[in-house]
Amino acid sequence: MPDILHRLAIKASPGDTYAALATIDGLSRWWTSDTRGKSEVGKVIDFRFGDRGFIDARVIELLPDTRVLWQVIDGPDAWAGTQIVFDLSQQDDFTILLFKHRGWAEAIEFMHHCSTKWATFLLSLRAALETGAGAPFPDDVHISNKGD
Amino acid sequence: MPDILHRLAIKASPGDTYAALATIDGLSRWWTSDTRGKSEVGKVIDFRFGDRGFIDARVIELLPDTRVLWQVIDGPDAWAGTQIVFDLSQQDDFTILLFKHRGWAEAIEFMHHCSTKWATFLLSLRAALETGAGAPFPDDVHISNKGD
Repeated sequence: MPDILHRLAIKASPGDTYAALATIDGLSRWWTSDTRGKSEVGKVIDFRFGDRGFIDARVIELLPDTRVLWQVIDGPDAWAGTQIVFDLSQQDDFTILLFKHRGWAEAIEFMHHCSTKWATFLLSLRAALETGAGAPFPDDVHISNKGD
Repeated sequence: MPDILHRLAIKASPGDTYAALATIDGLSRWWTSDTRGKSEVGKVIDFRFGDRGFIDARVIELLPDTRVLWQVIDGPDAWAGTQIVFDLSQQDDFTILLFKHRGWAEAIEFMHHCSTKWATFLLSLRAALETGAGAPFPDDVHISNKGD
């Protein structure tokens, strides 16, 4: 099964980076400003993107300063059953983020789009942590001719 | 074999987008300013990134306004034998770019890095076409703790 993979070094502590991934407030500062639900193992986080859609993800694993793992339970058809994993480690003054969105059935055109879009959101995460100014939906970087 | 995939809509014609991918001058405006060689089928293009390394790619296919395909013949070990493909199509006022860097032996951490880095270079390509100001090496967006 094809995966979307990314790696980014962020000049922030693993603790601060983890908080940006494992709290509703943190997530709302870089992915979508309309993030609801509970970031607790077994609970569901609701990511809302206005007219552009939504994603519901169940929290599977929360290892402080180390790992956040979600299972997608609703959203775009092609995301059904996929998993999103953030692995954190420290190198000098940086937190290294290894990202995987895995379990895609096939490498459709939409998966190409999501790969690039994830890069822009992870750069938004880095900006949120390094400068305080992320670019979450609806202020996200558009990469599609449909404005998403 | 895992692939790096991306998709981007660029507000430019397929002809202009193709020129940015199929000419030495075009490539130097978004990937690395130090691009040499010949963009002709069977010839080699030399991409130079100062102290950070180099990539030599043989041009396999050039279909005007439609496709550019390279085979990597030298560079980072993990890139050996990989192929880089740019497929273009038109939708309204946009050129849709489907990108694949395929043939990686395994999904190593460096592949995660290259996936994110390709996203930044493809955004540089878009900026070069839409605004005239790309961000090729050495003015590229750094995403690693090593400054690459």
